[in-house]
Amino acid sequence: MYVLYYSPGTASMVVHLALLEIGAPYELRLVDFDKDAQHAPDYLALNPDGKVPTLVIDGRPRAESAALLLMLAERHPEAKLIPPPGTPEREAWQQWAVYLSNTLMSAYRLWFYPHELGAEEHPPAVRAALQKKIEGAWDLLEARLAGRGPYLLGGEFSGVDLLLTMLMRWSRNMPRPATGWPALKRLADLVRARPSWRRLYELEGLAGW
Amino acid sequence: MYVLYYSPGTASMVVHLALLEIGAPYELRLVDFDKDAQHAPDYLALNPDGKVPTLVIDGRPRAESAALLLMLAERHPEAKLIPPPGTPEREAWQQWAVYLSNTLMSAYRLWFYPHELGAEEHPPAVRAALQKKIEGAWDLLEARLAGRGPYLLGGEFSGVDLLLTMLMRWSRNMPRPATGWPALKRLADLVRARPSWRRLYELEGLAGW
Repeated sequence: MYVLYYSPGTASMVVHLALLEIGAPYELRLVDFDKDAQHAPDYLALNPDGKVPTLVIDGRPRAESAALLLMLAERHPEAKLIPPPGTPEREAWQQWAVYLSNTLMSAYRLWFYPHELGAEEHPPAVRAALQKKIEGAWDLLEARLAGRGPYLLGGEFSGVDLLLTMLMRWSRNMPRPATGWPALKRLADLVRARPSWRRLYELEGLAGW
Repeated sequence: MYVLYYSPGTASMVVHLALLEIGAPYELRLVDFDKDAQHAPDYLALNPDGKVPTLVIDGRPRAESAALLLMLAERHPEAKLIPPPGTPEREAWQQWAVYLSNTLMSAYRLWFYPHELGAEEHPPAVRAALQKKIEGAWDLLEARLAGRGPYLLGGEFSGVDLLLTMLMRWSRNMPRPATGWPALKRLADLVRARPSWRRLYELEGLAGW
């Protein structure tokens, strides 16, 4: 049994999607950002960084979306969210998981939370630089997917496609949404057509893209 | 046989340390930052992001330090750089690897490369915010290590301690170096006493801390 502490549409999405793909029983607990519940003492006891998600596995609270995706993928090999040990595809998967997390997730964090760079609102130069960093990742991913898609590992869907589609979704109100890159859009369309994606929208009360 | 593209003292350190811990044969190739070799076409063909390190595994170029550490750890279980599958310690390891990479490595990147935030030099508020982000990680790690050290997984050394010590080293010229946190210093002292660390200093021509 898993317990997922989540907030709709945030970084918990990829973990929630992985749970739905696996079909494992889990319990959902909302962390209400409107009440700043992510900084309440009881939540900080589970997640000292005050971030979402936390996934409780066998009674132990675990954090970091990309790591949680990896943990769930390893615990449920039958769901094929990660290629098996000893294959080059597994190593490609590991590289993408860290790349997406390290490059895109950290840039988005600053994009959405200017106070983490000491500002109420980003000055135009900082905003432009963060936008460039995010769009640079789309360029790199597009070049990869156009040549060897439709998924990050080529012909086969895997868990890193869930992570990428979540990150693409976060760009929907940016000046150049990721769906403007054709091979990226193709990947997102495939992921959005999966039952896990549609079920997540119902459960988290999300709409649109 | 591995081929490591590196630059002394950079993010390639943790991969080089892992290779030394494993004792596997490898070839070192310097990427000369003074000549901007990380942006030369032949290097970009291996690493489209123009970043160090790249590790060529079975002829395939792979990137992202934390992912390379994971790949090497999985390929050489006898080196015990990562706990075995199916253990809670492995999941703790995975969380730390992503946390360190996502939080510290990305903040350092901005600290050392102001142009990635559109500035020649960081304005004081940005500099202070990045410093706070990095020091916040030391606070969190100190709290963890003081209670359940001396290593990140408790009593046993593992590959994430190499990653952490490399990241601590990068703070040595900051206003508050990580060695100012006692439990962190204890961990770094243990890692710096390992033969792999001393051999790396010789091979990369590093000195001091």
